[in-house]
Amino acid sequence: MYPESLNKLIQSFKMFPGVGNKTAERYALLILEKDEEEVSRFIEALKESKEKIKTCTICGNYTEEEKCLICSDKSRNEKLICVVQSPKDIIAMEKTLEYKGVYHVIGGLISQSKGILPEDLKIKELLERIDQSIEEVIIATNPTLEGETTALYLDKLLKEKNVLVTRIAHGLPMGGHLDYADELTLIKALEGRKKM
Amino acid sequence: MYPESLNKLIQSFKMFPGVGNKTAERYALLILEKDEEEVSRFIEALKESKEKIKTCTICGNYTEEEKCLICSDKSRNEKLICVVQSPKDIIAMEKTLEYKGVYHVIGGLISQSKGILPEDLKIKELLERIDQSIEEVIIATNPTLEGETTALYLDKLLKEKNVLVTRIAHGLPMGGHLDYADELTLIKALEGRKKM
Repeated sequence: MYPESLNKLIQSFKMFPGVGNKTAERYALLILEKDEEEVSRFIEALKESKEKIKTCTICGNYTEEEKCLICSDKSRNEKLICVVQSPKDIIAMEKTLEYKGVYHVIGGLISQSKGILPEDLKIKELLERIDQSIEEVIIATNPTLEGETTALYLDKLLKEKNVLVTRIAHGLPMGGHLDYADELTLIKALEGRKKM
Repeated sequence: MYPESLNKLIQSFKMFPGVGNKTAERYALLILEKDEEEVSRFIEALKESKEKIKTCTICGNYTEEEKCLICSDKSRNEKLICVVQSPKDIIAMEKTLEYKGVYHVIGGLISQSKGILPEDLKIKELLERIDQSIEEVIIATNPTLEGETTALYLDKLLKEKNVLVTRIAHGLPMGGHLDYADELTLIKALEGRKKM
């Protein structure tokens, strides 16, 4: 029904998360309706971000320079390192405006099923950053099987370095309901209970 | 927080319908994660669709050739013309697999508030297509104020040409509920009632 090139464009849009046939079609039709100039600006933004953005040589965060905005910020506490899976997680953490330390992106999680081994991750680079000056390493991998496995693995290695290792808390999400929570979350919430 | 070029990319993604900050961010981060080649293919698809797709010289539908796939299809009934606002509407109509006539895209709707006058639309082109051979013109503009205004305007002009003019039915959408329907829809549904 569609011209060939429109079909191709619709297929392309399906690579985005949560975009099915219907949404891809709407996006593609918008592209056809937009004037040449606006689509060119969009293409330029796509190209530029692929060309300019690389990962910080220290922590692995997205950056256009050699050092990311966080690693070059003198006001951050460099004695506190938060370990995350990907740069996306840094963005999420930064939105809290609470954390004032620095980060380390390991670039994935240990996974038997996906065949991801510790040596595939930036763990060696993390260990190299740990010296006497580091006061605490917060492990903020996702609370999933793979995230937990990776956290335990990192904990073992880091403890050999004589550094305080902590894990972000697990429990009920704020605004959540007890009866909607899964068992594992409830168990974690109970285990992590605090005196009021 | 983001590198400049990532910020720009996120802003760009917000041009798509229903895409807010959060979704634009997810799309932009996906672009960074994808390999060079896949992003290039996406850019190519964007460029190609803008370059290749034009509007059919007969009906105004999207096409890569001079005549669209529908206008060049000999099995379609050329005596039956369905008038729609935009090529998107043709796609919607075609999905029903019911309609076997041809189309005419007028490219917009008459609107006082937006300052769109009849002469801004492809109405002259529609009238030029109407000759003795045409048996019916179905007006399928949206059931909105502007769509109705345009339908009435077209009806007047087309009747002078001695052609049967019909309007698609208005009423309750299939699967809809009486108590969710707005008054106008209910009035139209009552007016359009049929013997069972």
